[in-house]
Amino acid sequence: MLSALLIQAEAFPQEALFRAQNIISPEVHEDNSVTFRVFAPNAKEVQVTGDFLPTVKMDSPMGQIDGPGKAALTKDENGVWSMKTEPLGPELYNYSFIVDGFTTTDPNNPFLIRDVASAFNIFIVGGGHAELFKVNDIPHGSVTRRWYDSPGLGMDRRITIYTPPGYEKSNESYPVLYLLHGAGGDEEAWINLGRTAQIMDNLIAEGKAKPMIVVMPNGNVIQDGAPGEGSKNMYKPQFMIPKTMDGTYEGAFEDIIKFVESNYRVKADKANRAIAGLSMGGYHTLHISRYYPNTFDYMGLFSAAIMPREDATGKVYSNFDETLQAQMDNGYKLYWIAIGKTDFLYDANQQYIAKLDSMKMPYEYVESEGGHIWRNWRIYLSQFAPRLFH
Amino acid sequence: MLSALLIQAEAFPQEALFRAQNIISPEVHEDNSVTFRVFAPNAKEVQVTGDFLPTVKMDSPMGQIDGPGKAALTKDENGVWSMKTEPLGPELYNYSFIVDGFTTTDPNNPFLIRDVASAFNIFIVGGGHAELFKVNDIPHGSVTRRWYDSPGLGMDRRITIYTPPGYEKSNESYPVLYLLHGAGGDEEAWINLGRTAQIMDNLIAEGKAKPMIVVMPNGNVIQDGAPGEGSKNMYKPQFMIPKTMDGTYEGAFEDIIKFVESNYRVKADKANRAIAGLSMGGYHTLHISRYYPNTFDYMGLFSAAIMPREDATGKVYSNFDETLQAQMDNGYKLYWIAIGKTDFLYDANQQYIAKLDSMKMPYEYVESEGGHIWRNWRIYLSQFAPRLFH
Repeated sequence: MLSALLIQAEAFPQEALFRAQNIISPEVHEDNSVTFRVFAPNAKEVQVTGDFLPTVKMDSPMGQIDGPGKAALTKDENGVWSMKTEPLGPELYNYSFIVDGFTTTDPNNPFLIRDVASAFNIFIVGGGHAELFKVNDIPHGSVTRRWYDSPGLGMDRRITIYTPPGYEKSNESYPVLYLLHGAGGDEEAWINLGRTAQIMDNLIAEGKAKPMIVVMPNGNVIQDGAPGEGSKNMYKPQFMIPKTMDGTYEGAFEDIIKFVESNYRVKADKANRAIAGLSMGGYHTLHISRYYPNTFDYMGLFSAAIMPREDATGKVYSNFDETLQAQMDNGYKLYWIAIGKTDFLYDANQQYIAKLDSMKMPYEYVESEGGHIWRNWRIYLSQFAPRLFH
Repeated sequence: MLSALLIQAEAFPQEALFRAQNIISPEVHEDNSVTFRVFAPNAKEVQVTGDFLPTVKMDSPMGQIDGPGKAALTKDENGVWSMKTEPLGPELYNYSFIVDGFTTTDPNNPFLIRDVASAFNIFIVGGGHAELFKVNDIPHGSVTRRWYDSPGLGMDRRITIYTPPGYEKSNESYPVLYLLHGAGGDEEAWINLGRTAQIMDNLIAEGKAKPMIVVMPNGNVIQDGAPGEGSKNMYKPQFMIPKTMDGTYEGAFEDIIKFVESNYRVKADKANRAIAGLSMGGYHTLHISRYYPNTFDYMGLFSAAIMPREDATGKVYSNFDETLQAQMDNGYKLYWIAIGKTDFLYDANQQYIAKLDSMKMPYEYVESEGGHIWRNWRIYLSQFAPRLFH
């Protein structure tokens, strides 16, 4: 009877048909060279731009910085443009196509990550440190997006929580890393751009990091959740930092700690709390760990925005020297500072280090290649996490 | 001292600069008309295509279907192309631009959803049923991506779980809806394309649906997780249905039920289990609810792919009539079938209904406008969920 109902066609959503091209792009070859392809029979010129290419100098609001280079694709008789790179080093790369001057995503690569207001295609060349960015066949932690009440900010707020493999079935308590995003980021930044779940799963499976909970809050006090995920719904994110570096967020950080420590099985003491952040999140880390001076044993400042604002008059910023001294006197295990050689915040970090030296405040300093980029922040996380909770 | 470190530049990732345009697109106006804009000074022709436009007939592997129309944008003196629609009805829409024949995403709209192998921009026009798709300032459930062991399939598998507002702090037990995706989908489909968390949060806040856990598994037995999220890492998804409609998945479904019932506070009885799915997931729903004939009180077949394969010889498909009769004899509360008038599976669903009529097997039938599209499936979920667990 039912065989009479047989339909040969496959069942899939109609929408998915309309942009499909029968092309693989990018294709990562055995030797780690990569071929990009795009079907654009009417185009006169197609280029690819991305961070796998040598950088070029470009102007920006932050002065001259390293921007991604461009490379030309060539067209075949079928209207398919392609370009094969030299073998690339291990990394998670991003790229876009430029078709007759118009910058576009790759229609054959559905893997995109939003960074502030733009969506980029990504791909991974494995090997070396990039193996940490892959999903491997190992035990996996869980990633939860949930909401917590912040009395200090007067709203429910969205937060991303990584719990390590085995958390749900265990009776153990775990240490906690609070991991803070930069300006333009939100509670989606570290989990998506930062590959936090993949890095932590892999480090834990290799025995290189202790099983820990990683808490990724939203550091923008003007929104309750990431663009598209909060009650402002979808809008174009901007680079403004209104009220995100005025002390409001740092002052209310205890709401997050209380939420975590009353909702998860955690070791709720200084020896089992770490805090780290990139750029603005490094700034938040500096101030939160000083404002709550006997709370964290581990601090990580990744390309930290050492840039107190002249309009920052909140009580979080008062008595700076005294509270930093108190943080030092209370003691801690690790104050870890990392910055890239071409980061526009390089000099500011050197000045901050000089200040720490003058106070004889202990820290560890890591200087990497490159600038103010996610590539560095993923690596800093993979270097910092193994140092925690020993 | 620290004020000497003041830097005027804002701190944000360099990458985010490179695709930014100082343009808002799309802009939803007060009257629900929408303006699309794109900066393409060198382009000769720019169009927008999307499901907000009247459909046009197009050929497909499934025969002639309704495809999205196109509309022209016009260029201003700054090289910005734009087009303003008539006021649109409430809906979550998708669209792409076509720049000189090249189909591309909107560089000013960072909100994209992957559907099989393509990424589409989306926007929401509110009002009516589309209010259910928005994030509102109400209590929110949690969404967790985690992994479970499937002995029946011999691997750890990724799964998405929605728990209702208050679940973590409550001592109550909850009913469970198992919600299955279609061919080309995965454990990301219902939560992203289907807006499941938003729909459930809103229905629960309005008192229209009971608080429930929604379990969104991966129905493709050849992968352990969604493309990019499983151990095959990033690859271009295809439409093939190898081994996904041969009974393997249905036969191992008890692994999912056991995982849920041993990891969550659930009411583990028939009266508190529902199962529903779209397209292939409707096919899975039909067969799982029949193969485990006394397990679910609520079945939802959304645009179900009533298409047993001639090569489907697994034991799940044997004794079809007898097991369907047994399911009926055991009793259930709701067998809900919904299909769009222009769905290519319309006739197949009518034949299945005729079979149910001939058996005197009770069901409810809902016929909507439109075809085999997510727009219908979001609406079906919002109609089905309120019917559950009374």
